[in-house]
Amino acid sequence: MMISGKNSIGNNFSAMGTDVFYAKNPSSGEQLKTKYHEATVSEVNEAIVLAEKAFVQYREKTGFEKASFLDAIADELFQIENDVVDLCGQETGLPEGRLKGELGRTTNQLRLFASLLRDGSWVDARIDFANSDRKPLPKPDIRQMQIALGPVGIFGASNFPLAFSVAGGDTASALAAGCTIVVKAHPLHPGTSELVGQAILKAAKTCNMPNGVFSLVQGVSNDVGLAMVRNPLIKAIGFTGSYGGGKALFDEAAKREEPIPVYAEMGSSNPVFILPKALEDNQEALPEGLSNSVQLGVGQFCTNPGLTILQDSEKVRDFEQKLQNSISLSQSATMLSESIHKNYTKGLEKLKSKDSVTLVSSGKQQEMPTQGVAEVLSVTAANFLKDMELEEEVFGPSTLLVHAKDKIEVLAIAKNLTGHLTATVHGTEEDLREYSDLLKILERKVGRLLINGFPTGVEVCHSMVHGGPFPATTDARMTSVGTAAITRFTRPFCFQNFPDSLLPDELKTENPLKIFRVENGKTVVP
Amino acid sequence: MMISGKNSIGNNFSAMGTDVFYAKNPSSGEQLKTKYHEATVSEVNEAIVLAEKAFVQYREKTGFEKASFLDAIADELFQIENDVVDLCGQETGLPEGRLKGELGRTTNQLRLFASLLRDGSWVDARIDFANSDRKPLPKPDIRQMQIALGPVGIFGASNFPLAFSVAGGDTASALAAGCTIVVKAHPLHPGTSELVGQAILKAAKTCNMPNGVFSLVQGVSNDVGLAMVRNPLIKAIGFTGSYGGGKALFDEAAKREEPIPVYAEMGSSNPVFILPKALEDNQEALPEGLSNSVQLGVGQFCTNPGLTILQDSEKVRDFEQKLQNSISLSQSATMLSESIHKNYTKGLEKLKSKDSVTLVSSGKQQEMPTQGVAEVLSVTAANFLKDMELEEEVFGPSTLLVHAKDKIEVLAIAKNLTGHLTATVHGTEEDLREYSDLLKILERKVGRLLINGFPTGVEVCHSMVHGGPFPATTDARMTSVGTAAITRFTRPFCFQNFPDSLLPDELKTENPLKIFRVENGKTVVP
Repeated sequence: MMISGKNSIGNNFSAMGTDVFYAKNPSSGEQLKTKYHEATVSEVNEAIVLAEKAFVQYREKTGFEKASFLDAIADELFQIENDVVDLCGQETGLPEGRLKGELGRTTNQLRLFASLLRDGSWVDARIDFANSDRKPLPKPDIRQMQIALGPVGIFGASNFPLAFSVAGGDTASALAAGCTIVVKAHPLHPGTSELVGQAILKAAKTCNMPNGVFSLVQGVSNDVGLAMVRNPLIKAIGFTGSYGGGKALFDEAAKREEPIPVYAEMGSSNPVFILPKALEDNQEALPEGLSNSVQLGVGQFCTNPGLTILQDSEKVRDFEQKLQNSISLSQSATMLSESIHKNYTKGLEKLKSKDSVTLVSSGKQQEMPTQGVAEVLSVTAANFLKDMELEEEVFGPSTLLVHAKDKIEVLAIAKNLTGHLTATVHGTEEDLREYSDLLKILERKVGRLLINGFPTGVEVCHSMVHGGPFPATTDARMTSVGTAAITRFTRPFCFQNFPDSLLPDELKTENPLKIFRVENGKTVVP
Repeated sequence: MMISGKNSIGNNFSAMGTDVFYAKNPSSGEQLKTKYHEATVSEVNEAIVLAEKAFVQYREKTGFEKASFLDAIADELFQIENDVVDLCGQETGLPEGRLKGELGRTTNQLRLFASLLRDGSWVDARIDFANSDRKPLPKPDIRQMQIALGPVGIFGASNFPLAFSVAGGDTASALAAGCTIVVKAHPLHPGTSELVGQAILKAAKTCNMPNGVFSLVQGVSNDVGLAMVRNPLIKAIGFTGSYGGGKALFDEAAKREEPIPVYAEMGSSNPVFILPKALEDNQEALPEGLSNSVQLGVGQFCTNPGLTILQDSEKVRDFEQKLQNSISLSQSATMLSESIHKNYTKGLEKLKSKDSVTLVSSGKQQEMPTQGVAEVLSVTAANFLKDMELEEEVFGPSTLLVHAKDKIEVLAIAKNLTGHLTATVHGTEEDLREYSDLLKILERKVGRLLINGFPTGVEVCHSMVHGGPFPATTDARMTSVGTAAITRFTRPFCFQNFPDSLLPDELKTENPLKIFRVENGKTVVP
């Protein structure tokens, strides 16, 4: 497949601007050959105008038609697996196995949303039938279902070049919802983005989807993204990335004449609490499991366990020793880019410059560019509680051990946490009984609470919540992974006194789609 | 029942501030006797701290316990019906029949949410069971349900002193969701608010709800409301009122360190489109129906039909003549307050000062204070499309007739609309076939679309959407009326790998509550 280096404004390549940029291979430090054209503000706006025109048609597509489109995207991606994995490997330094896995996850995600659409019940159809005999006033016929918001702007993430990028979760859920989309490719993997974008456009043609259902804009500068957020035709934003980036988009959207929802998943440090008896019972498995989780994907996961809270006991020293050994034997690995690597190093330096923080262990540094070296640091709970900065995410393969003297300090740490995507508690049955208050406190701090596991690895399924209270996200009411993500791009709509023929199939009295509905307050089985 | 004139900070009366105010009878213009103490910022904050403490306990109450609480509030309100109707009549000038009806609606609303809680399925429980055999990685056990957001701040509305005030829809849905609340009483009916507040507190005691589950603060100044929005313990805001008020709260919330959702329902002008054949077929019913809808509640409804779009035909003159007759015979009626009356008059003056706008008809002015006189105005579509101000809500018993030359102008008006709560189309079968594009355009502009009805009258049921795109509300993804309103105050939460005993009943494997759940992607009938 050819890479043009241009933007895709609907089905047309476009390169009107003069700003260009190049991707870089983080493993070699070499600049890749293809020149990418940053989209101009007018190209972005053109894509959005097309998305608006396409929306008028796309929103009328049936669930089955949209499902076929999503499946066709998955098929196209599967067809170009080798090209994608090869180019993406060059742009991100991620190993083949990981990229194949991520592509599989991406296509499965598209197929999962397709199955949700074929099932059809996700629209939350509700009907209250008319009752002309009701006193004092007759009851009108009222029917509700979820409908699409409108054109959506999506920002590809750096750390998942496939599963959270051009054909990732935001795209799958927005297209499933019935929204047309304009995707801003992440500048660290523009070629991968174009390849994936072409696959989507090919699928759109095969499925007779309107021109403009999908556009892809490239760019390094903030102007491209800001143009998207500022355009009044855009009705929602999906973003996965840094706190700085996400919050800037949120603030910009709030300033619009018509404010719009911004779903920014901004990462977190995912505290892991290890309770005393669990520590004693799992002297091998826990340090090894934590070490693996910290290093997974060179720590470049939103769910990386950046904080580990330990309560003092005889066995804590052993645990720390084993973790130290495991980390000190670890080999550094290539991070996604020089800037991510630099920020990781800076984040660690900042921590280590604090009197309160001690370095416990470092992995081995390989003599290659952009190497992320695993590190374990340590601080007392008392000092941790005094310094809010210690809770902030350091994006990379590190964790900060927080040593609590007793249960009181453990609970104090939990209470003082801001919002995170996840929290984890390792505990025996006895621990969990004794620390039930800890679980209750953590429920208010996160979107997902795990027992005896590790937060890395986000299952794409119906029950997943990848979200959580601010500052983990800008909207705790939503998830960006799993089928529930679809409602980010919909709103409830109410048809009053419509003749059956003018109602959408989901709400026709005969229930032709055989979906679950709430009728007069009772769930009716189709 | 005694009115103290004080704030209720949890179960305690409090009057620490020096600012006081009085209610006024809009029918007589007389100031009522009771002196009300405006809450100080520290009283507001004290109420919120109590709400936070109470939340820790209240969120653990079962659905049945919360349902009993809501039913008990309804019972208490029913007990004091005469007192409430009497005092509320003095404070608002609303007639007894309306207030009795509104109280019935308020208690029914509480009972409807109670029944939703007893049914239990509203939590949207989802389970993906573990599969240890899955390759390449075992599948963890993941379970999701909706949980309460935290303490909520609620603003009582001026125009529904019962159904959208202290025990109104926001209160019912927030308490049902498991949130504790602090309500800011609307200063036009402080006594009614206190009476209702005392009923809620009495019910809370009877049901052993924690102190702080409900507080009531009084005040005229913006400081009281701003203190509520600014307090970091508050996790969401419910508001019904003017665009100015709602947008100010929204902007304030977006400025917080942790932004929170603001559900502001800010009214709209609810365009009514009357298509040619319907006009011909309903020459008596349509002008009469419109005239009634315009005057209902002296036009002080968020769903008042402030815009009526007519396509030129032979019969339009007749329609206008009949509407003119009906309006000219109408008697003025007491509006809720001097300021509402003044704003209504000012809004009409502003319209009439425009060269493009003609006065069609005025009702009869009675010689009493704060009389809202019904008015019908008229403008051509061409002039309407040139002047955005003509679309703005004029809160009171008026409608602006917009005369379109042809279907093209009708569609142009629809396309140019901003967000409204409702739109209505009057059409015969033939009209509706011919104007199917109109329906599609309007779907994108409103939360509720009616055929052959009038927008006033918002049914409290499972299917209602009382909401819509900005500027009708600040969050089109939600409704403030009907059972779906509960999700404004919840977020999805995910339990991973929890032992059954530590899961909430909604998610235990045996399904002890017998609720509908999605298990491994399939809806399972209990």
